Amino acid sequence: MTTDTVAKVASARIHIDGQAIRITGMAKGSGMIHPDMATMLAYVATDAVIPQEALDALIPELVADSFNCITVDGDTSTNDACVLMATGRGSATAMQEDGVHPTLREGLQAVFNSLAQQIIRDGEGATKFITIEVEGGESVDACRQVAFTIAHSPLVKTAFFASDPNWGRILAAIGRAGLPNLDIARIVISLDDVTIVREGGRNPGYTEEAGARVMAQGDITIGVRLGRGECSCRIWTTDLSYDYVKINAEYRT
Amino acid sequence: MTTDTVAKVASARIHIDGQAIRITGMAKGSGMIHPDMATMLAYVATDAVIPQEALDALIPELVADSFNCITVDGDTSTNDACVLMATGRGSATAMQEDGVHPTLREGLQAVFNSLAQQIIRDGEGATKFITIEVEGGESVDACRQVAFTIAHSPLVKTAFFASDPNWGRILAAIGRAGLPNLDIARIVISLDDVTIVREGGRNPGYTEEAGARVMAQGDITIGVRLGRGECSCRIWTTDLSYDYVKINAEYRT
Repeated sequence: MTTDTVAKVASARIHIDGQAIRITGMAKGSGMIHPDMATMLAYVATDAVIPQEALDALIPELVADSFNCITVDGDTSTNDACVLMATGRGSATAMQEDGVHPTLREGLQAVFNSLAQQIIRDGEGATKFITIEVEGGESVDACRQVAFTIAHSPLVKTAFFASDPNWGRILAAIGRAGLPNLDIARIVISLDDVTIVREGGRNPGYTEEAGARVMAQGDITIGVRLGRGECSCRIWTTDLSYDYVKINAEYRT
Repeated sequence: MTTDTVAKVASARIHIDGQAIRITGMAKGSGMIHPDMATMLAYVATDAVIPQEALDALIPELVADSFNCITVDGDTSTNDACVLMATGRGSATAMQEDGVHPTLREGLQAVFNSLAQQIIRDGEGATKFITIEVEGGESVDACRQVAFTIAHSPLVKTAFFASDPNWGRILAAIGRAGLPNLDIARIVISLDDVTIVREGGRNPGYTEEAGARVMAQGDITIGVRLGRGECSCRIWTTDLSYDYVKINAEYRT
């Protein structure tokens, strides 16, 4: 059974030294989406000439910033797959001495990211597309820990469903994410370009109207700065709606 | 603001050497319930004579098996409290050489557990009272990791809301709980006294009718055996219903 509601495809056409390379991918998935992937299938093909070893080295990198950066409900599946194929039919020079040409890498990443984003946009019951950017962590893992704690918080997710700028729920999720010796005075929280919490406390210029304006959108970025280091991460997630419950409670009826 | 719908009180009257000791407690809380506690307040008083140091030593033990064993949504609060008071007005001998008399300890634990269970029964949107018992772990922490992964899985919670014996979702949650080298062939899963998965695979005697019969109840115990050690844990949680979303999305309206 699938709960996908739309087909998910993405293509890119890049040029290296004037020669065209085509990249096309398709994916399936809408629930049980969380690293390491989920009930998800993704197939990406390119006509570039890329040796097997280079493909093997490339795919974990491409997945790290795309399919392993998305979550609907934190639940994962036992059967998921991401396949990258290079047919070698094209004539462009895809390889450099140190690996895949950066332009080709960018094109592939763009297709991977597009497919990952399409999965989130079609996430079970999703009414919002939420980007969470965490900066200033001591490690990427620490940033991901914070980002996924926010992304999986039912309180944060229901607030987004309600278009409610309840930043206290975001702050509470950051606080319980498990980072040792977190200094709340250094935390910065923003919704798109609206800064709600700045270092030292609430931004005195913040108004709930400004927050509500951002929350009314379909696409929202939660920005978090931790003030602990130089690492960062970016993940994509959904809100938690009545339809999520309906899809997963009444899927047999 | 509170989303509690009922008052939560519990009392016990025990006897030591024929002398009565009274224990009475009250609690508040229904959402953001997860260790370490949550938007929760609990006050328990006894007329027993218990010195301060003994109270200080006792309360973490009493909390470990009660308020720190419950979760509604995995979200926690920044303001929670559990207070244990001993007025010393009673005449019973509450203390032994090695600490509080076991009968008094039992009475206190019963009151703590009752209050913790009442919080879960009044959990936001809850239609089910779910006990999760995990046995055979290499440590209590490992058991709790499995138990809370099951308890926080939106897929498990929506299945319980639907009275759907979807044991695959339980098994998937066990699998992603993060235990190293988990051997799926040793996992046992039961709903009350109905064994669904036994060592080596699905119980051939299991029928979906038997599972559905248990799921139709208001109180359900999920039993998990890991086959890795001698440790165990028991926690209490709720399902995830439309009303949970409603309470947390529309709380301002």
